Amino acid sequence: MAEGTVVVFGGDGFCGWPTSLHLSRAGYDVVIVDNFSRRRIEAELSASSLTPIRSLDERLATWKALTGRTIDFRQLDASTDFDAIRDVLSEFRPLACVHFAEQRAAPYSMKSAACKRYTVNNNLNATNNILAAIVEVDRNIQCVHLGTMGVYGYGALGGVVPEGYFNIKVPLPNGTYVDREILYPPDPGSIYHMTKTQDALFFQFYAKNDKLKITDLHQGIVWGTQTPETVLDESLINRFDYDGDYGTVLNRFLMQAAVGYPLTVHGTGGQTRAFIHIRDTVNCVRRAIESPPEAGDRVRIINQMTETHRIRDLAALVQKLTGADVENIPNPRNEAEENELTVSNPNFQALGVSATTLEHGLLEEITAIARLYRDRADFSKIPCASYWTPERARIAREHFDKIAAE
Amino acid sequence: MAEGTVVVFGGDGFCGWPTSLHLSRAGYDVVIVDNFSRRRIEAELSASSLTPIRSLDERLATWKALTGRTIDFRQLDASTDFDAIRDVLSEFRPLACVHFAEQRAAPYSMKSAACKRYTVNNNLNATNNILAAIVEVDRNIQCVHLGTMGVYGYGALGGVVPEGYFNIKVPLPNGTYVDREILYPPDPGSIYHMTKTQDALFFQFYAKNDKLKITDLHQGIVWGTQTPETVLDESLINRFDYDGDYGTVLNRFLMQAAVGYPLTVHGTGGQTRAFIHIRDTVNCVRRAIESPPEAGDRVRIINQMTETHRIRDLAALVQKLTGADVENIPNPRNEAEENELTVSNPNFQALGVSATTLEHGLLEEITAIARLYRDRADFSKIPCASYWTPERARIAREHFDKIAAE
Repeated sequence: MAEGTVVVFGGDGFCGWPTSLHLSRAGYDVVIVDNFSRRRIEAELSASSLTPIRSLDERLATWKALTGRTIDFRQLDASTDFDAIRDVLSEFRPLACVHFAEQRAAPYSMKSAACKRYTVNNNLNATNNILAAIVEVDRNIQCVHLGTMGVYGYGALGGVVPEGYFNIKVPLPNGTYVDREILYPPDPGSIYHMTKTQDALFFQFYAKNDKLKITDLHQGIVWGTQTPETVLDESLINRFDYDGDYGTVLNRFLMQAAVGYPLTVHGTGGQTRAFIHIRDTVNCVRRAIESPPEAGDRVRIINQMTETHRIRDLAALVQKLTGADVENIPNPRNEAEENELTVSNPNFQALGVSATTLEHGLLEEITAIARLYRDRADFSKIPCASYWTPERARIAREHFDKIAAE
Repeated sequence: MAEGTVVVFGGDGFCGWPTSLHLSRAGYDVVIVDNFSRRRIEAELSASSLTPIRSLDERLATWKALTGRTIDFRQLDASTDFDAIRDVLSEFRPLACVHFAEQRAAPYSMKSAACKRYTVNNNLNATNNILAAIVEVDRNIQCVHLGTMGVYGYGALGGVVPEGYFNIKVPLPNGTYVDREILYPPDPGSIYHMTKTQDALFFQFYAKNDKLKITDLHQGIVWGTQTPETVLDESLINRFDYDGDYGTVLNRFLMQAAVGYPLTVHGTGGQTRAFIHIRDTVNCVRRAIESPPEAGDRVRIINQMTETHRIRDLAALVQKLTGADVENIPNPRNEAEENELTVSNPNFQALGVSATTLEHGLLEEITAIARLYRDRADFSKIPCASYWTPERARIAREHFDKIAAE
């Protein structure tokens, strides 16, 4: 059994909850820190998880009853409550902090000025607070952060997307060149993604100035809902978001198929994206904790993804599997309609996570969950109602008006 | 005479105040927005400007009496008061916003966890709020932002420091290369400088997604105090900071010489830095306003500096001029002890600002101001008391203990 304490910031969320259970089962003493912002936004959007999420108290009591293992909980806001963060680190002296405490939906981050501001304020202050607290309490506490493959601009630069770093040749005045390694040039496609590129600069600075041990996991789009721990009891079930803001694309397609709603593809569906199953997420986080960088190392960046797919191919796959209709709608996002994406991730592979790739059994498992809870679905929440610009909103409005008139 | 309104965020500060006067005199209707944070921090540090700064009311009344020109004022905090920013933009419909509303001292940003957090929270939210408000009110309002030459890492990459952008060759799988332009890889040396590199990502995103017209002025270290407008009356005098947190190096040396305090050089003084006179700052900002980028352009980045100098050479120059002693003290900063810095700035030169370079007349003007107000000096505030790491603080403490014991 593993030993030591891990503090999971954002441990009540979609990735944080199954990670907390996984770490607890592996033997770590887990402390969940959360301010329930995801539950608050769920209420704000009137868009609930398709699966019924229990209170954190009930979740933790069930876990204790089933496994005998205690998970501690501290309610605080990582973006504001610096003293409380410092107190948690001082009290528990963890070997690592896992930082999921960020607003994680690109559409929500583009919904309004208020949502842009919330995302920036929450994500950037949370990251800075956690790092500044580690500096104060103990610079040996590792920080493992969940980033996103979206920081790279989905291959727009050309070539293969590496794990965070890029080699360039810098011309010198004497006509020769010097080889340098730089952070891969960021090209975020939303306010949300932008905050993750700004996070990378926090990490670069604190690793260099304070020799903090930091791992940034640039994660693909997560699919799946359950892990070996969340299936143990219905009270432990993980979130399943299907709304236009928080529903990730493959889960959303499978839910749409299960409830008999056409699969809505944004634009041509020519966007190529990276994916990972939630089971592999939790494994990767644990293994990152277990193989920390050394103090003084540069930030370790891992492309936490197992495969890439074009969105229209995913829609076709789900259609074939379920017979669902596919509907192309105007893209609410400012993005390339078509892109290639080739990813390199030797750091991920070195962690030894056995990749769960897209296969029918798992897709059917998700469809089954969606079917089980279909009565909870609010179809009005499925379309994306967050537009990147007023022009995108106008085009979509005209499209839907035309359909309504037909 | 120029026409139109310019809103100056941070218009009560060291660069903001002379810029506001300069724009007003040029014919612009100026609206100063400020929350007096610089005056608040002055009180917090018990470190006043060497020159006596009048209340903003008195400053504005004097300006009105002398020139007949009104400068409007709105007190608000750009990092929090989004609705008020939007109201100011809606009320005045400016052609441009100048954004100085950031905590601008690297040592202050490294002073404590609270100072790190304040700098991050203030600077990043202020930038995002101003940009998000422009999106809401009118995307044609230009944004001219004061950045810093410090974003570039002072030449550590090698070669010449360009104006924000850098050309690289990206390898393709077929063995060929494609030419790409990227933002110059950031390498900030303090929390303050880091926020400016994070600002660059705000600008990149809003220029791309919302087609905002943005100019980022990467400014060298400002020297000088007075401009043709601030000398008109003592009530209009500009700040002269000499304390260890806010005093910029050349002004600090000149003040130290004037009051008979040794010139304190951090480390070997081998750091090479870029400089600009405050007169050129205000001119450059005005000219940037008068030659806006087009909607859809990339962010325009200007290296707002006129010369580079090595710190020990500046100390030697001031010593020669004044007979002051030079004292090398342990460097409070984590930085290269020695660096070369070659800067390219055709965009700056194209603005046609006539460069005020270091010459004895201007240095003597500053020394004369310092001598005039020497009775206001608090010598205990001169040494830098902000250390980048506990190790740096320990080395300095041992150094000063040893001197005290001798």
